[in-house]
Amino acid sequence: MLSPMRRITLFAHVGIVLMAWALPATSGEGMWTFDNPPRKQLLERYGFEVTQDWLDHLRCSSVRVGDGGSGSFVSPNGLLLTNHHVGRGQLQKLSTRDRDLVSLGFYARTTADELKCPDLELNVLVSMEEVTDQVLASVGPEMSAKEAMDARRRVIAEITKKATENNGLKSDVVSFYSGTEYWLYQYKKYTDVRLVMAPEGAIAFYGGDPDNFTFPRYDLDMCFFRAYENGIPAKTDQYLKWNTAGARCGDLVFVSGHPGSTNRLQSYIQTEYQRDVAYPARLKGVERQLSVLRKFAAQGPEQARQAAGSIFGLENSQKAMRGEYEGLNDKDLMAKKFQEDKDLHDRVLANPASKQAYAWAWDTIATVIERQKAQNRQSAMRFIRGRLYQMAFQLVQAADELAKPDGERQPPFQDANLAGMKFRLFSPAPVYPELEKVQIADGLAEALESDAKDDPFVKEALRGRSPEEAAKELVQGTTLGDAEVRKALFAGGEKAIADSKDPMIELARKALPLQNEFRSWNEKYVTAPTAKATEAFGKARFAVYGKSINPDATFTLRLSYGTVSGYPMNGTQAPAMTTLYGLYDRALGFDNKGAWALPKRFSEGVGKLTLSTPFNFVSTCDIIGGNSGSPVVNRAGEFVGLIFDGNIESLPGRFLYSEATNRAVAVHPGAIIECLRKLYDAGELADELEGVKARPTL
Amino acid sequence: MLSPMRRITLFAHVGIVLMAWALPATSGEGMWTFDNPPRKQLLERYGFEVTQDWLDHLRCSSVRVGDGGSGSFVSPNGLLLTNHHVGRGQLQKLSTRDRDLVSLGFYARTTADELKCPDLELNVLVSMEEVTDQVLASVGPEMSAKEAMDARRRVIAEITKKATENNGLKSDVVSFYSGTEYWLYQYKKYTDVRLVMAPEGAIAFYGGDPDNFTFPRYDLDMCFFRAYENGIPAKTDQYLKWNTAGARCGDLVFVSGHPGSTNRLQSYIQTEYQRDVAYPARLKGVERQLSVLRKFAAQGPEQARQAAGSIFGLENSQKAMRGEYEGLNDKDLMAKKFQEDKDLHDRVLANPASKQAYAWAWDTIATVIERQKAQNRQSAMRFIRGRLYQMAFQLVQAADELAKPDGERQPPFQDANLAGMKFRLFSPAPVYPELEKVQIADGLAEALESDAKDDPFVKEALRGRSPEEAAKELVQGTTLGDAEVRKALFAGGEKAIADSKDPMIELARKALPLQNEFRSWNEKYVTAPTAKATEAFGKARFAVYGKSINPDATFTLRLSYGTVSGYPMNGTQAPAMTTLYGLYDRALGFDNKGAWALPKRFSEGVGKLTLSTPFNFVSTCDIIGGNSGSPVVNRAGEFVGLIFDGNIESLPGRFLYSEATNRAVAVHPGAIIECLRKLYDAGELADELEGVKARPTL
Repeated sequence: MLSPMRRITLFAHVGIVLMAWALPATSGEGMWTFDNPPRKQLLERYGFEVTQDWLDHLRCSSVRVGDGGSGSFVSPNGLLLTNHHVGRGQLQKLSTRDRDLVSLGFYARTTADELKCPDLELNVLVSMEEVTDQVLASVGPEMSAKEAMDARRRVIAEITKKATENNGLKSDVVSFYSGTEYWLYQYKKYTDVRLVMAPEGAIAFYGGDPDNFTFPRYDLDMCFFRAYENGIPAKTDQYLKWNTAGARCGDLVFVSGHPGSTNRLQSYIQTEYQRDVAYPARLKGVERQLSVLRKFAAQGPEQARQAAGSIFGLENSQKAMRGEYEGLNDKDLMAKKFQEDKDLHDRVLANPASKQAYAWAWDTIATVIERQKAQNRQSAMRFIRGRLYQMAFQLVQAADELAKPDGERQPPFQDANLAGMKFRLFSPAPVYPELEKVQIADGLAEALESDAKDDPFVKEALRGRSPEEAAKELVQGTTLGDAEVRKALFAGGEKAIADSKDPMIELARKALPLQNEFRSWNEKYVTAPTAKATEAFGKARFAVYGKSINPDATFTLRLSYGTVSGYPMNGTQAPAMTTLYGLYDRALGFDNKGAWALPKRFSEGVGKLTLSTPFNFVSTCDIIGGNSGSPVVNRAGEFVGLIFDGNIESLPGRFLYSEATNRAVAVHPGAIIECLRKLYDAGELADELEGVKARPTL
Repeated sequence: MLSPMRRITLFAHVGIVLMAWALPATSGEGMWTFDNPPRKQLLERYGFEVTQDWLDHLRCSSVRVGDGGSGSFVSPNGLLLTNHHVGRGQLQKLSTRDRDLVSLGFYARTTADELKCPDLELNVLVSMEEVTDQVLASVGPEMSAKEAMDARRRVIAEITKKATENNGLKSDVVSFYSGTEYWLYQYKKYTDVRLVMAPEGAIAFYGGDPDNFTFPRYDLDMCFFRAYENGIPAKTDQYLKWNTAGARCGDLVFVSGHPGSTNRLQSYIQTEYQRDVAYPARLKGVERQLSVLRKFAAQGPEQARQAAGSIFGLENSQKAMRGEYEGLNDKDLMAKKFQEDKDLHDRVLANPASKQAYAWAWDTIATVIERQKAQNRQSAMRFIRGRLYQMAFQLVQAADELAKPDGERQPPFQDANLAGMKFRLFSPAPVYPELEKVQIADGLAEALESDAKDDPFVKEALRGRSPEEAAKELVQGTTLGDAEVRKALFAGGEKAIADSKDPMIELARKALPLQNEFRSWNEKYVTAPTAKATEAFGKARFAVYGKSINPDATFTLRLSYGTVSGYPMNGTQAPAMTTLYGLYDRALGFDNKGAWALPKRFSEGVGKLTLSTPFNFVSTCDIIGGNSGSPVVNRAGEFVGLIFDGNIESLPGRFLYSEATNRAVAVHPGAIIECLRKLYDAGELADELEGVKARPTL
C-alpha cells in the first residue's frame, strides 16, 4: 500500500540549452506532467493517440485528496472514489469509543446519511501556466545560493497571491526538472466533503502489514466520499465514466494521480548517502516509534484504537523504506545509477560551455555530503513527537511569520497557503492525551540517550524533570487539544502567544529562535547549496536529454501508462489478476486467522458472490506513494481500476524504474460492484456508479 | 517438483572415535536412517514417542519406486500411490501416437483394465543389518586409496551375493556418514507393476515449469499403480491407513522416502568448487540439450510427444540446479558452510590423535581440486546422448565385466545387481530414432566446438563424417531399438559382441578401452583420493558429533519430520495450505492460458467441487530429489499427504537446510478423494483408499 507523501521544497533555475538527446525512457517508465504526455511512445508502442480533450477530461476528473492521496470523481454529483487507507484518517476522526468506523465500515444509504469530514480537502487541477521566465528574472547571477533562494521565494509568493486574487482559485508555483521549469498550478478546492461508504478495515487492508506492498492481493481498499458546495452535492460535470468490465490482461491503461516524490534524478553520491546514512537512521527511528506505540496499544482496546492510525502509517512507511533500502543495497541498481550519473557527467565535461556551467555541481554535492557526514546536525525538535506540540509550534511560528510581509514568510505561512494551514490546524478531530504522553516521554528519553542530550531545546523541554514527568506536565497542562483554544490563540497573534502560560506554547516560544538558527545554518550549508547543485544537474540533464525524460515526482498531477501484465516472482510468474476465488483460498490457507481473517460479511456471504469476478490486478504503470486512490483508465478514458499499492519489487522505483518487475496494484471495478450489490446491500451506490440512476439528494 | 536421483557410489572406512559432541541439528533438519530416528528431538519438541512398531510399519509401507522415486502402499491389495511425475516415464512408454497417457490420463475401473508397465520396479526395505566390521576388516592400513577401494568393492560384492543367495531378497550394502558405517539393506522387489490411475498431465503438473519448485501450488501430482505377484494383486499387509481429513496447519508430520543425494557434509572448498566450476558447466550443458530438444519438439505434435519426457526432465533439473546454484552464490549460506568446516577442522587440530588421523584430508581435497581445475579431464563419451548408444555401451561393458569374477566387476554388473540392470536394459519401451539422431548430432557438434575435438573417441564416432551424417548412419544402421536384439546380444556374451556389425556396438567396442583408461585415471587421481578424504571427514565428524547429525542422502529410506506451516515469502507470508478455490483463482489470473490452462474436466466441473477442500500444503520436513511420491504421515502413522516438490527456497538445501524457509510441498488427501469422486467418476478407487471396500480383483 502506498504511503502519503508531502510536497518537496521548490528549487531554482539558470539557463543554457545544449543539443537535446532523446533518452529512450524504459517503456512504461515515467510520471509525466499533463503538458508533456508521452505522445510518441504511446503512438509507437500502442497506436494510441493522446487528444487534448482526452487529457483535459482526465485531468479535471482527477482529484488530489488531503495531504497525500489521490482520487477521482466517478459521478456527476460529486461522488469521489479513493482508497480506504487514504480516507482512513477521516474515518478515525469520525469514530468514537463506541463506533470505530475504521474497522466497522460505513454506508450512507441517502445523502442525508453522509457524514461531514472534519478536515478533508480536495483539489482539482483546473489550470496550468508556465511561469519559468518570471521566476528566473528574479535571480541575478551575482547572488549567493541563499540570496537566490530568498529571491525565488519572494517572486513565487507574489505570483501565487496575484493568481488567487484574480480568480479565487488555490494557487501553487511548482518546479520541475529540479528547478528548470516553473509552473503556476491552480486548483478548484472542496472543503465540505462527506463520507459515503467504507468497507470493513479487515477487507480494505486484507492481509494486513504482511501482505502490504505485495501481490497477488485481495484487498477492497476503497472509500467513497462526496464533495459538497453550498450544502448540496457538488455538480461535477467532469467525472470518469464507470466501466464494470474493467481492465483485462494485456490492456493499455493509464494512471492519473499525485505521486509524492522520487529521487531518480539525484547524483550517484546522493543516492549512496541515502544508502549509507539516511535510510539506516530513518529505519532505526521508525522502529523505535513503533515499539512505543505497540506497547501503548497493548494496554487495551481503546488504546489500540487510538494508536491504530499511527501504527498503521508507520508500519507502512517502514515496509516501504525497507523495500527502498533493499533497492539501494542491490548491486545492479546501484551500478545503473552510477552509470547514469557518469554518462551525464561525461557529456557535461565533453563540452566547454556545459563544463563551465555545470561541472562544479558534482563537487558542491560532494562537499555538502562530506560536511553532513562529519557534522550530522539535526533539529532537536524532532524528539518531541505527537500532535499537540506540533500545533503549539505552528501557532508560535504563525504569530511570528504573519508579522512579516508575505514574500518574506516561510511558504506554509504565505497568504496563498494560509487557508489550507488553518483548515488543518483548526480541525475538530480528537487528540488523545495518554498517547501524546508516551510519545513525548519516549522522544525525550531518546534525546537523553543521544548526542543531543545537552541541546538547549532538550534541556528546556526537560528542565530537570524525567522524560515521563516532563511529558505528563506538558500534556496535562495544555489546553491545545481544544480547537477553539487554538483558534483564539491564532487570532490573538503575537500578543496572545507572548502572554500564553500554556506549557506547550511556552516550550515552543523557547524553541522558535533555536529552530530559526538551525534553519539558517541548514539553509546556508545544506539546503541552498544542494538546491543550487541539484538545479545544475537538472539543467544539465534537461540540456542533454530535453523533455524526453520526465521530472521527479512532486505531489503534482501526473500521467503514467502501462500494460496489465504479470511478472516474474518467487521463481515463477505472478498473474496479472486475482479473483474473489483467491480471497477464500488465502483465508483458508491461514485458517482464516490473523491478518487473513475474513470479515463476517465475507465469510458468511461467499454463496452470494460470483467468485470468478476479478478482484485486484497489476499493470506496469509507474507510480509511487501519493498515487494511492488514483484512477486507472482505459483508452476511452473510462474508470477501469483503483490504484492502492505497488508490489514489493516496485519500492526501489524511488531510485530506478524497472519494467520487468515494477507493478502498480489496483482494485478491479468488477469486484467493487459485485461486493456493493451482493454483500453491502448498497445498490443505490452501485447504481450511481454504473449510471443507472442518480441517488436522491437531500 | 523433485528430480529423480541415482545412487552415489559407496565409500570406505577406517576407525578412531573421539568424544562425541551433541551437535544440535536445526529442528526439522535431517533425513534420518530408520535405525537412528531423532527420538530425542521428537520427544522434547513434540512430546512424541517413536515406537519400534510405528517405525517398522512405516518402513514396510514405504516403497522405492524405479530409479529415483518414492511411494507407499495405500491398500492391502498392492495399491501404490506415487507422483504423476514419478510414473511419467511409464505413462510415456505405455503411450502411442494416438493415445498419449501423459496428457490424457488414465483410469482402470477394474483390475482387469490395469495396464502392465514395461519396466517399473518397486522395492520395499524389509531388512537392515549393520556390516561395518566386515567391510572394515577388508581394508589394511598399508593399502593405497585405489587398493582400499577395490578391496571394499570385493567384500561388498561377497556380502550382497551371499545375502541374496540366503533369502532371495535384493541386497545392497550402503554406507553412511561418508563411509563410517556400512549396512546391508535388503528389499522385497516387485517387477509386475500395473497402472491404475493417472490424472491429466495438465493438472498433475499444473503451472508447468514456471510453477515447478514453487508454492503456493495447485497440483494433483498423483499416480496410482498396483503391485502384482504371480499374476494377481500383491497382498500388502503393511500399508498406510488413509486419512481424508489429512494434515492441518501446525500438525507434526513425517515423511518416509528416498532422498537421492545431498552434499551437506562436504568440505568448504568442495562446495566452492561446485559453485565456481561444476554448476556453471552443468547448467551450460543442460541449456544446450534443452535447446536441441525444443527445436525438435517444434516440428510437430508427434515430435513434441516424443521429446516431452526429456524436456520435462531437463527443465526440472535446470530449475533445481539454478536454485542450488543460487544457494551457492548466497553469501550467508557460504559463510555458514565455511564456519561449519572451520569448526570441524579446528576441533580435529585441537587433538593430537585426531590431527594425525584426519588433518591430511583437507590437504588431499585441496590437491584434487587444484588438479581438477588445472586439467579438467572428462570422458568424451558424454558427447553421445540418447538411449541407443547408452544401451550399446552397456551391452559391450556387460560382456566384458561378466567374464570377470563377481568381486572384480563394476558394481552395476555384480550378480546382486544384475537383475535390475537387465530389467531396464530389456525394457520393451519404444525408442524414437529421429529424436536419437538430433541428440547425437548435436552432441558431436558440441564435441567439435570443444577441447575434445581431437579426442580419439570423438574421432572414431565421426570418422570424417559431419555430426549429422554420423548420427544418421549410427541410428539408421543399428537394430538395438528392438529389445529382442538386445537380449540376444546380452545372451551371446563376449563372442556375440565381438562379432556384431551393428555400428553402435562397433563404436561402443572402440570406446570401452578408452573409457576404462579414463576411469582408471579418474579413480587414481580424483575418485579414490576424494573418497579417502571424504571418509576421513566423515569419520572426523562422526567422532566429534556422533549420530546427533544425520548422514547425507544416498537414495536409501529416510525419515524426516516437521510442522505444517507457512513461511516468509515475497515480502509477506506464504500460507501453509492452498485449496481448490486457489486453483481457479490462478487459472483466471492467467486467462486460463499456457501452463495455467485447466483441463476441461476441471473448468467444466467447478460446480461439482467443494472448493474449500485443501489442495496442496507445505511442511518443514527435510526432503530432496528422490523423495517425490513419499507419503506424509501423522502421529498415528496414517497417510495425510503426498510429497511432490520442494519450494524454491528449499533448493539450496542440497548444501544447507534452513527451517525458516525450507518447505516440502505435498498434495492433500482431501483433494485426491474430492477429485476422484466428483471429477473422475473413480468412486471404486476412492472406496479402496478410504477402506470402504476392496476393489474387485481379476
